Amino acid sequence: MRIITSIKKMQSLSSQIHLQGKRIGLVPTMGFLHEGHLSLIREIKRHCDVTVMSIFVNPTQFSPSEDFADYPRDFVRDKKLAEAEGCDIIFYPDAKDIYPGNYLTYVTVEKISYILCGVSRPIHFRGVATIVAKLFNIVKPQIAIFGQKDAQQAIIIKKMVNDLNFDVEILVAPIVREKDGLAKSSRNTYLSPEMRRQASVLFQSLKAAEQKILSGETDAAAIKALIKNKIAEKPAAVIDYIEIVNPETLEHQAEIQGSVLIALAVRFGKTRLIDNIVVDKK
Amino acid sequence: MRIITSIKKMQSLSSQIHLQGKRIGLVPTMGFLHEGHLSLIREIKRHCDVTVMSIFVNPTQFSPSEDFADYPRDFVRDKKLAEAEGCDIIFYPDAKDIYPGNYLTYVTVEKISYILCGVSRPIHFRGVATIVAKLFNIVKPQIAIFGQKDAQQAIIIKKMVNDLNFDVEILVAPIVREKDGLAKSSRNTYLSPEMRRQASVLFQSLKAAEQKILSGETDAAAIKALIKNKIAEKPAAVIDYIEIVNPETLEHQAEIQGSVLIALAVRFGKTRLIDNIVVDKK
Repeated sequence: MRIITSIKKMQSLSSQIHLQGKRIGLVPTMGFLHEGHLSLIREIKRHCDVTVMSIFVNPTQFSPSEDFADYPRDFVRDKKLAEAEGCDIIFYPDAKDIYPGNYLTYVTVEKISYILCGVSRPIHFRGVATIVAKLFNIVKPQIAIFGQKDAQQAIIIKKMVNDLNFDVEILVAPIVREKDGLAKSSRNTYLSPEMRRQASVLFQSLKAAEQKILSGETDAAAIKALIKNKIAEKPAAVIDYIEIVNPETLEHQAEIQGSVLIALAVRFGKTRLIDNIVVDKK
Repeated sequence: MRIITSIKKMQSLSSQIHLQGKRIGLVPTMGFLHEGHLSLIREIKRHCDVTVMSIFVNPTQFSPSEDFADYPRDFVRDKKLAEAEGCDIIFYPDAKDIYPGNYLTYVTVEKISYILCGVSRPIHFRGVATIVAKLFNIVKPQIAIFGQKDAQQAIIIKKMVNDLNFDVEILVAPIVREKDGLAKSSRNTYLSPEMRRQASVLFQSLKAAEQKILSGETDAAAIKALIKNKIAEKPAAVIDYIEIVNPETLEHQAEIQGSVLIALAVRFGKTRLIDNIVVDKK
């Protein structure tokens, strides 16, 4: 496995790989790898010849009050885990090369960047779209994979790819969960043992909502109330949002018909966790 | 010469050209070709194997009050002119494919998009950066060429390429002028014969400013006043702006030292003309 830190070296290596007629697959991450990230490597390897994982904690997707400085980092461990899964290249750039002085250019996906997580994180998806556009131009993948845990992110990236005509296929891989259902996240390490126990309510409430929909409930407000009441049983949980939306367009759904995405964000102390489920009502 | 209208076909053709180890050069235009555009074809052919000219009147760089509908178009003539210069491919997409319904994604280059022409055209450079990013993703050039006539545009595109890590080299070709010095522009066709005669004052005033700087004047305000007075002699001319800036960063220069860009925009009736000169004070 090669570690590449230089943008120019990564670009010229990618051009060489293309000249050989090989397909590059990209797994963009912020590192501190868990089973969710590793599942992305395993999945993309089925679709490409050369797997590149990028590891970069992207400052432009954090607001000044957020956890950029504290975000967990462990490159030595990440390197071992990625190599064990058969990753071919880690792209591990320096922030001062990615955002040099007098950086001015941003990619924005209007409307869908300002709902759900975008309400409490107004610059977050601009930062995500910008870094993903940059990584696409540096790594030049034919295919890239993102996790369904960040459902809104995956939808925004698909929209950016389509709108800006990036010639990159986007895969979205299922959420990987802990035994009690908590979605794997690098941020879970922030939780105290008590908060960690309470945090299983996120998935439990989503499963309860799914059950209710599958047994005939069509009123989104009733489903949201059910989730809210279930989460409210946990004293450390502070709800940021619970929304029921179209899984392609993120449009609000007042009445549940066909397929819906139920997405939520809940704070435990300073830690903000997200989770979601797609319920397909036949 | 091939005419390609489909985005997908252009992308797959470009990938094939890359596989052959050939270099693609892009000349992005809005058509209604004049000698300035043709000089761009001639120049880029020296740097690439396959020359692609795009012809697309880009709606997102016009505000509702501007001349999008009236912008001159003549594809049959453009095709002949491009072919005669040895252009290999014209990419001529349809607006509804470039901006399908529910289009949401924009590329913005902060700060330098909101000065000079950006003051009276606040969304213009967002539209330019967005369409150029899209054309780069569709045509996948290794090199692209722009005219110095649109000096601010060229600087914004270079900044975007650098910031978003597009692996595309940017060339900027000199302004091509009419015999009386007026910069060639598709918009010159809007001018009445009398306005056309008066419009030569743009270049004359820039040359007078150059002379004054080369003979020792270092006060930018004095140079701007000189230009303003010269243009004011023409009754049909209404000045939009006259600015003296750093030719790389577009920062205002109060005192003239080293190299400066003098840029101006002047209206004749509904027609807004721009011109500029770089003065290199040794």
